[in-house]
Amino acid sequence: MLEHLGSFQRTHYCGEISEKDLGKEVRVAGWVDTTRDHGGVVFTDLRDRTGKVQIVFSPEISEDLVEKAKKLRHEFVIAVKGEVRRRPPGTENPKLKTGEFEIYAKELQILNRSLPLPFPIENEIKVSEEVRLKYRFLDLRRPKMAQNLIFRHRMYQVVREVFNKEGFIEIETPYLTKSTPEGARDFLVPSRIYPGKFYALPQSPQLFKQILMVSGFDKYYQIARCFRDEDLRADRQPEFTQIDFEMSFVRERDVMDVAEKVLRALYKELLGVEIGEIPVMSYDEAMERFGTDRPDTRFGLELKNITDVAKRCNFKVFRTVAEKGGIVKAINFEGGAGLSRKEIDELTKFVGIYGAKGLAWIKVLPEGKLQSPIVKFFTEDEIDEILRRLNAKPGDILFFVADKPDVVNPALANLRLKLGKMANLIDENKINVLWIVDFPMFEWNEEEERWEALHHPFTSPKEEDVEKILEEPGKVRARAYDMVLNGVEIGGGSIRIHREDVQEKVFKVIGLSDEEAKERFGFLLEALKYGAPPHGGMAFGLDRLCAIMRGEESIRDVIAFPKTQRGQCLLTGAPDSVRKEQLEELHIEIKDEEGEEV
Amino acid sequence: MLEHLGSFQRTHYCGEISEKDLGKEVRVAGWVDTTRDHGGVVFTDLRDRTGKVQIVFSPEISEDLVEKAKKLRHEFVIAVKGEVRRRPPGTENPKLKTGEFEIYAKELQILNRSLPLPFPIENEIKVSEEVRLKYRFLDLRRPKMAQNLIFRHRMYQVVREVFNKEGFIEIETPYLTKSTPEGARDFLVPSRIYPGKFYALPQSPQLFKQILMVSGFDKYYQIARCFRDEDLRADRQPEFTQIDFEMSFVRERDVMDVAEKVLRALYKELLGVEIGEIPVMSYDEAMERFGTDRPDTRFGLELKNITDVAKRCNFKVFRTVAEKGGIVKAINFEGGAGLSRKEIDELTKFVGIYGAKGLAWIKVLPEGKLQSPIVKFFTEDEIDEILRRLNAKPGDILFFVADKPDVVNPALANLRLKLGKMANLIDENKINVLWIVDFPMFEWNEEEERWEALHHPFTSPKEEDVEKILEEPGKVRARAYDMVLNGVEIGGGSIRIHREDVQEKVFKVIGLSDEEAKERFGFLLEALKYGAPPHGGMAFGLDRLCAIMRGEESIRDVIAFPKTQRGQCLLTGAPDSVRKEQLEELHIEIKDEEGEEV
Repeated sequence: MLEHLGSFQRTHYCGEISEKDLGKEVRVAGWVDTTRDHGGVVFTDLRDRTGKVQIVFSPEISEDLVEKAKKLRHEFVIAVKGEVRRRPPGTENPKLKTGEFEIYAKELQILNRSLPLPFPIENEIKVSEEVRLKYRFLDLRRPKMAQNLIFRHRMYQVVREVFNKEGFIEIETPYLTKSTPEGARDFLVPSRIYPGKFYALPQSPQLFKQILMVSGFDKYYQIARCFRDEDLRADRQPEFTQIDFEMSFVRERDVMDVAEKVLRALYKELLGVEIGEIPVMSYDEAMERFGTDRPDTRFGLELKNITDVAKRCNFKVFRTVAEKGGIVKAINFEGGAGLSRKEIDELTKFVGIYGAKGLAWIKVLPEGKLQSPIVKFFTEDEIDEILRRLNAKPGDILFFVADKPDVVNPALANLRLKLGKMANLIDENKINVLWIVDFPMFEWNEEEERWEALHHPFTSPKEEDVEKILEEPGKVRARAYDMVLNGVEIGGGSIRIHREDVQEKVFKVIGLSDEEAKERFGFLLEALKYGAPPHGGMAFGLDRLCAIMRGEESIRDVIAFPKTQRGQCLLTGAPDSVRKEQLEELHIEIKDEEGEEV
Repeated sequence: MLEHLGSFQRTHYCGEISEKDLGKEVRVAGWVDTTRDHGGVVFTDLRDRTGKVQIVFSPEISEDLVEKAKKLRHEFVIAVKGEVRRRPPGTENPKLKTGEFEIYAKELQILNRSLPLPFPIENEIKVSEEVRLKYRFLDLRRPKMAQNLIFRHRMYQVVREVFNKEGFIEIETPYLTKSTPEGARDFLVPSRIYPGKFYALPQSPQLFKQILMVSGFDKYYQIARCFRDEDLRADRQPEFTQIDFEMSFVRERDVMDVAEKVLRALYKELLGVEIGEIPVMSYDEAMERFGTDRPDTRFGLELKNITDVAKRCNFKVFRTVAEKGGIVKAINFEGGAGLSRKEIDELTKFVGIYGAKGLAWIKVLPEGKLQSPIVKFFTEDEIDEILRRLNAKPGDILFFVADKPDVVNPALANLRLKLGKMANLIDENKINVLWIVDFPMFEWNEEEERWEALHHPFTSPKEEDVEKILEEPGKVRARAYDMVLNGVEIGGGSIRIHREDVQEKVFKVIGLSDEEAKERFGFLLEALKYGAPPHGGMAFGLDRLCAIMRGEESIRDVIAFPKTQRGQCLLTGAPDSVRKEQLEELHIEIKDEEGEEV
């Protein structure tokens, strides 16, 4: 039954049939989207990546053709020759771009069959993601998914256009490299030639792009795959794509300017949206006002600090925290005085996720009276000060969290987001971009009792803070900058360390001995000895940015062949067992859970 | 001594200073290429990725500046502000693009130092490749190397331009995938989450691009990294880059047309060279005339078959071979009659590398007499026939090899190349491109006693040969095509199998049981069940093509950070040991050579 392609030569994509093709003989090919026999005439919607067009198989042309067309089923692959006609009045399909036309078939080739589908090829389907990922070849036929990947394709081109215009050189860096674990876990690749040795897949091209600056390439970019063997929370992938760039003889603003050009071009050329001035906010301000270094500034509900009031009040919970160096911050959820006790309990539970031991509250009732379990502990002046600072009006509810900063801030930042969504305060059409700068260089890791780099240890400290590196690491600010879009960090970077002596100090602070530093990063230290220029750069997360621009919740919907949250490819079955000989050649063997050979 | 970049803002690249900048104040930055004190005036050649320009530090401007400039050494990183002047007559440097000008420095910032170099930053250096790879950051400063990578950058852009114009969609396929060893060895990546299971790095995006065709993307491309854990002979890399594409509803010629467009655009836009008509030659013809499926057609010395004569002659060596199904082929090395006995012995040794047990020869002396150890075994008629067939003239020498085809062909193909080089017959400026088609689908693997796919098992057999797959695998021709440039295979591809039944037959012929086929390639077989369109594609080896276009002998000279032939990165030291905990997390351990735990 199946036919060969023969000399068939497509003249048109299905979705492109238009007015100017009327009366012409055309040849199209694609998948049978729907097909129905309507009084002896077969109407088939044929689909390709551009859209659909209706094919008519009529006995007027040939009875044999109609008989053949009756055999068509969903997703059969066919090629058709026919004439473009205008659909009879009243039969147009306004939902279809080609809905005014149809192709009167003269020839039909059935090129391949299809089994009945596990789910229909439609944008809205009710089927688990597991099934979609297993049948990814069908899932990607759904117009929305196909358009996601076509959009992503256009992103690549726009990004490269900007970099090419700005004089950047695209350079490929290795994917088989050296393990330098810092932060995330490396994926390892056993070497066959060197028993017991391993390559690592790069977590980013960071060190190579710095080496390229030392080599004098001046401006580098790459759309690069990165690999991190992390516990896959939320919406991460073990391999992901970065828009990566680096420049020499630059300061922060030079790099940020290029990043802005990239983002503006993407929104302008792909969505027709002009991105305005991009404000810059310090890390301290972001933490103070929003409790996070990636604030969503599309709505208010800002955090207010009342630690000073807490310090002098009689409410023991607040005062103790404030006296011990903790903080007390609050949110005014405007118009929220109507929240029920149960709703407040749920919000209390919610902040508990982030470690908050409680959620104090004050309702300003419509008539102006206060209702709250805690008001009694405050003087009138103190209450007035709190209400004033939170700009509280009748009908509002104020929420308070008191604890260490690294509990209060995340708890209230997330509460703020939750309340914003609850009250529908977030305008989904808004695109709010901002820069966060002046990050601390190091943060204290309680668990390991050591300083670690907030970004990475190649980030340059501010010139005026270099002297403090060894003495007061906590006070050193980094020359780093993150770009935040609607509360999501879409990119980040820094001016790097280009002086060997500074790099050595930073390694020392984060607890690397000279020997360890040399063993892991010796080649970088070596390169810094031979004329490394001042340089800096940045990277965007392309998957995330694409998902945001397409309005997709999950990055898996903008990646052709993603892994599940547990790191599996349900299409191919990776990761999978391998043959014993393969392991033998690699000089490794598998340990079972008890550490015994399997 | 080192200074900060401060507010320095470069206005020009060094190599771009020209007539129109005369009298202007400019700011440049880069590396000190050379510096010399000439009667109290310091002359420094400053270099960046665009070239060099001379900086003059003169006491006329400032004594302090000259003192500072005297501290400059090779590869120090500096920023300079100064005025562009014309060099005094007689001091111009015609070797330099900016040789008519110099910058009269007003300010100098010393941004970084450099240790004395292990080798000079010059195009021609006498230093081992090991040292160059260890100090790759310096090696890449050499203008030739920098230009190689900049050329490669331009290749990417030209390639993508062609594909974008032709309506191809760029799609990223996974690098962590399933091991499907067929041909080369896979690199494996142990999974932390699934003990005892492994990802594999892809040898090519082959199966994913076929899946994308099943998904309806119609035209796909990607500049993709590929990974093969092969024994690294000659000039291979464990990771290499492919220009990869695939199309639906096409025949061979459609794919070849696109490939030709890519190649033509590269040569036209990057080298200004027009590639003419690209001839098509069958595999059989290539083997017959050149003994190889990647003939260098820039010169003659074609192979002539004299098996028929051998079969009836009295020279036992030839006749026995011919009677046993072997072949006898010969080359006329025109004008080679002057070769000494020693030279002929060396050529005999040379063909021995390819398994030839001897190299028979006949000299046609200038006066027309023959000199040869074998002539006596032939009749006059036979000799006449041989001389006629080889178009032998006085002064020529004829070489003969008699053996099985897979000895004769490689031996004579390589002898032909060697003689061509010896006699300087190869015009290095010529660019000879041709297509090789009509490959056999399968070849017999003597060692494993089974048929294997000559290209890969997803290659479609010719439509008219499908019936022979199971019965006469040796007679099935493949719908494959290779592109050969000056005797190097730069790309290859095929129309693929899009029907499940055909794919299953091919797996059967190459010895995969249904179970094995399903285990390894189940997802492909599954995809073929749901409406796979006819499709085909191709891939170019980008590294090799770049090396050829740049006239480089080794692909390592067009890769930023290559590995050695033993798979090492001498810059970073990969592959390297890893921490014990890393292996524990991956549930593997290292076996020592005796199979004991280490």
